[in-house]
Amino acid sequence: MNPPALTIIGERVNASRKSIARAIDAGDDEFIGEEARIQVEAGANFLDVNAGTYPDREAEILAWLVRAAQAAVPAPLSIDTSSADALEAALEAHRGKPLVNSITLEKERMETVLPLIREHSCAAIAQTLESGRIPTKARERVDIAARLVDALTGAGMAPQDIYVDPLVRPVSTIGDAGVETLKAFSGIRARLPEVHIICGVGNVSFQLPGRPLLDQTFLAMAMAAGADAAIIDPCNSDIMASVAAAEALLGKDEFCMRYITAHRKGKLDQSG
Amino acid sequence: MNPPALTIIGERVNASRKSIARAIDAGDDEFIGEEARIQVEAGANFLDVNAGTYPDREAEILAWLVRAAQAAVPAPLSIDTSSADALEAALEAHRGKPLVNSITLEKERMETVLPLIREHSCAAIAQTLESGRIPTKARERVDIAARLVDALTGAGMAPQDIYVDPLVRPVSTIGDAGVETLKAFSGIRARLPEVHIICGVGNVSFQLPGRPLLDQTFLAMAMAAGADAAIIDPCNSDIMASVAAAEALLGKDEFCMRYITAHRKGKLDQSG
Repeated sequence: MNPPALTIIGERVNASRKSIARAIDAGDDEFIGEEARIQVEAGANFLDVNAGTYPDREAEILAWLVRAAQAAVPAPLSIDTSSADALEAALEAHRGKPLVNSITLEKERMETVLPLIREHSCAAIAQTLESGRIPTKARERVDIAARLVDALTGAGMAPQDIYVDPLVRPVSTIGDAGVETLKAFSGIRARLPEVHIICGVGNVSFQLPGRPLLDQTFLAMAMAAGADAAIIDPCNSDIMASVAAAEALLGKDEFCMRYITAHRKGKLDQSG
Repeated sequence: MNPPALTIIGERVNASRKSIARAIDAGDDEFIGEEARIQVEAGANFLDVNAGTYPDREAEILAWLVRAAQAAVPAPLSIDTSSADALEAALEAHRGKPLVNSITLEKERMETVLPLIREHSCAAIAQTLESGRIPTKARERVDIAARLVDALTGAGMAPQDIYVDPLVRPVSTIGDAGVETLKAFSGIRARLPEVHIICGVGNVSFQLPGRPLLDQTFLAMAMAAGADAAIIDPCNSDIMASVAAAEALLGKDEFCMRYITAHRKGKLDQSG
């Protein structure tokens, strides 16, 4: 039995993207549904929804995004918000088992978000933040992850519903950001074998040119270090080709059959 | 101070390639010189030379390849042969400090190759073979590497002249070949911090379609696991783009300046 393939959280339904903002402003739920549909077709397991650029109407818009996406596809959504009110409204609108993006050890998040996670039987992304700060060193992040997973399982969550996010930082400003994050992935994988580990790819290449290549290279490294979930755009064929290669190389694709099939269908366009 | 960038051994001057065989048959030393020149220009630190497909005349042809390559560029060569006679002839022809490809713990290799390494003050690729067999598990390869490095340093070699090669095996036939090799890289890096670790990329994708993407993805993973040298074609812009991305991500490219420069020069064509 091979280990499972990468769990993909599709990132496209985010109001910071112009086309999504236009759809929100126009009340165009069909456009949102189409963005949901193409991501599921491309391999997404969850769809992230984010309306953070509308702070005054976030609860209303996020719930609308949930309904619009789930009217098109039955996939579970990742409810991406820092507002407890918006989270609650979105969870009320959601059908199936949602993923809450995100919870941290911070007192205010624990007090407002954890009850909602329990009430709606959610999975959750657990970020290794402490006191509003991302620790720079891997060991601190592993320690925070262990305490956070303790708190969440202590509150009744199953480990396999927890997606630990060690929070990738940009290599443009912090030379060892990549290395320390990879160490955090492998440290969390060793210490907490039952949880998922999620890689939010885009941050690593912040403020650099040639970001897609950095993102896909880092994701392959993160998967080798133990990440088994990622927030990416599944409609980006380059990053999906890279994921297929990483899965084949890491024994997550029995006899490399998915890789061979993807090649036959012309989906690995980098590889000629 | 950033750690050093990847040491690149250019693989193009290999008689198993048709164009090189034609040049050998025609005595075309200018073609060999041009193959050497374009690899150094593309970033090679060493140039591998291999005449293994001419077993009856290997010593003569390998020495000729050495002279032809070094007539064009002053780069040191990697002398790639399983014949002690061919190795000796090539070392006699070589100027500067050569890299011997390769030595193993096997008695016959130790008795014939080690004296040549000492006589010509060579660096060497040290393969983790034992009794003609590549161990499948990482731990065995780390153990063999430790004994081999002990034997070589005991014979007077400096650790920084040793390039340990944990011997990459194909994922098409062995599901955990990639994972175990990556574990071998990180195990050797932890146990033998002073030696180089070299990744012979192409083997991992043997018998699969879409090989370039598998090779470049695996090399990035190998670098993250501790490899600091690789046998590749430096004229392949895809794999060099992937190396540039990996170096930036792993803190081996201060302020990502080489990556930014490569992007500006249009050398990262994958990244748009």
